[in-house]
Amino acid sequence: MLVAGVDLGGTNIRCAMADQDGHVLGEKIVRTEAHAGPNQVLDRVARLVDDLADQAGARPQGIGMGLPGLLDLRKGRSRFLPNLPTQWRDIPVRDMLVDKAECPVYLLNDVRLATLGELCFGLGRSVQDMVFLALGTGIGGGVVIDGRLRLGPLGAAGELGHQTILPGGPICGCGNHGCLESLASGPSIVADGIRLLLSGQAPHLYQAVGGDLNRVTGRKMAQAACAGDDALRDSIVRIAGYLGTAVANVVVAVHPELIVFGGGVVEMGDLLFDAVRATLRARVGMFPVDDVRIERSQLGERAGVMGGIALALNRGCPQKLTA
Amino acid sequence: MLVAGVDLGGTNIRCAMADQDGHVLGEKIVRTEAHAGPNQVLDRVARLVDDLADQAGARPQGIGMGLPGLLDLRKGRSRFLPNLPTQWRDIPVRDMLVDKAECPVYLLNDVRLATLGELCFGLGRSVQDMVFLALGTGIGGGVVIDGRLRLGPLGAAGELGHQTILPGGPICGCGNHGCLESLASGPSIVADGIRLLLSGQAPHLYQAVGGDLNRVTGRKMAQAACAGDDALRDSIVRIAGYLGTAVANVVVAVHPELIVFGGGVVEMGDLLFDAVRATLRARVGMFPVDDVRIERSQLGERAGVMGGIALALNRGCPQKLTA
Repeated sequence: MLVAGVDLGGTNIRCAMADQDGHVLGEKIVRTEAHAGPNQVLDRVARLVDDLADQAGARPQGIGMGLPGLLDLRKGRSRFLPNLPTQWRDIPVRDMLVDKAECPVYLLNDVRLATLGELCFGLGRSVQDMVFLALGTGIGGGVVIDGRLRLGPLGAAGELGHQTILPGGPICGCGNHGCLESLASGPSIVADGIRLLLSGQAPHLYQAVGGDLNRVTGRKMAQAACAGDDALRDSIVRIAGYLGTAVANVVVAVHPELIVFGGGVVEMGDLLFDAVRATLRARVGMFPVDDVRIERSQLGERAGVMGGIALALNRGCPQKLTA
Repeated sequence: MLVAGVDLGGTNIRCAMADQDGHVLGEKIVRTEAHAGPNQVLDRVARLVDDLADQAGARPQGIGMGLPGLLDLRKGRSRFLPNLPTQWRDIPVRDMLVDKAECPVYLLNDVRLATLGELCFGLGRSVQDMVFLALGTGIGGGVVIDGRLRLGPLGAAGELGHQTILPGGPICGCGNHGCLESLASGPSIVADGIRLLLSGQAPHLYQAVGGDLNRVTGRKMAQAACAGDDALRDSIVRIAGYLGTAVANVVVAVHPELIVFGGGVVEMGDLLFDAVRATLRARVGMFPVDDVRIERSQLGERAGVMGGIALALNRGCPQKLTA
């Protein structure tokens, strides 16, 4: 039996075909071209699946697909996908793809799907309880309890980027103030770097990007901090403090044994991770947290498609979200 | 078959005897006299169980008992009980009570026990996912996912009073700064009331307590606010905002359908609850939360002993914590 995992993002569609043990037989990425609208994008997904099926010599028995945003899992419709154009609002994505691909389709929020991937095929294989944080342009998450991805009635549980960390903090895209996402997303981190570069406090970063603000990244900031840009180091430690506070709040609530960070921000490396770990220890005084590991995703950008494969194989997810 | 539930607190020991359906046959409260030390206090527990057994005409087949603090559930030992004298640290409570009462004993943190009580015999009977917050001198909590109390490796999951709500906030007993407990516990609420009373901004409260600061309570503050003490109203709404933020952070993480508040602070009534509900709606922008109910505990002070009965009957708790 073959299944397909699809990670439908605002920029790319990634697809992988696997056997019943989750061994990947083929994998492919194409541009989403989201502005063409749902029908044409889902045609592209179906074609991608066809290509991989031809390559594997067999049709998939199911497709697990992630979409970036809030879905109606029961009805298989998109609700609100902030990274896709507005014509994606309230689309019967599942039924449309079932028609095109002629097999059952299972949907999930993209970060919950990545959580499932990491759980079933990554670092989560050896644990029962895990929290996943995807740190990128936005911050998403997923919570695993007793070996099962936590969904809640809307599949929206795990939106850990929207914990309030600073009650009077910056406005967030969700309408709240001081969400983790408003403080520690990729763009927030880069904004700090640009400010410090412009004010002459980040000479190593300036050199690394040749003065080009568009080339500032979290990774380059961390490298410049390690090379001696102390203001950047302070900025990174402060932002890691927000992340660590968010992690601490989840730890006191559910005490998972493993926290996994994915997304581009993990490229900041040890400087970030060490400061997050220090904050976790400082903020949780009620019980020892030395046993709570904070690690970088093993699957990286492939976590989503691997989660799609897990979903289609009905692993680690409490609801059988049938087509 | 009979079982006993025991709620061992710093001030009182409460005990109830019930049949296998959880119907209570007898209930009794005595003073803890905690300074007499663990051995004598556990003698008092055993005597209380004996009294109720005599009354019921049968011995219990198990005792479920809550203690205020961190326990080693596997070994059945106390670890750190902040509301009991220091000689309670690292005591083999379970084995001692097994010897005295001659039946299996199951231990749990007192607020996790109350959560279990509310789950099995209170508002939680109709739900699968629930969060309990005990708002008193301290703030404890419990998290129920898929009908089961979440424990974590130390039985410490659910310490929701120690979420960081204000990163640079007041020092908390746990060593962190800005925990919910440091901002919204009974004493913190009363401290606000006393300040406003002393500065002449709470004339109705002043009248209600006859100028006696020791008589200031959250309930009287809420009544005075409703009678026209606007500064008290502002204070209560601000504190409810912290509580609502803590609730919002748990909701984005696990999206439960029911939040239950217990403890003396619930006497503040609608003024508190309405402001918490408003904060929840304001702080969660990622998905609709109209379906998340915030209610006052149905069992009140009896939640703990009812949880003890549930624990002894092996309901709602994932680990069989044998004697």
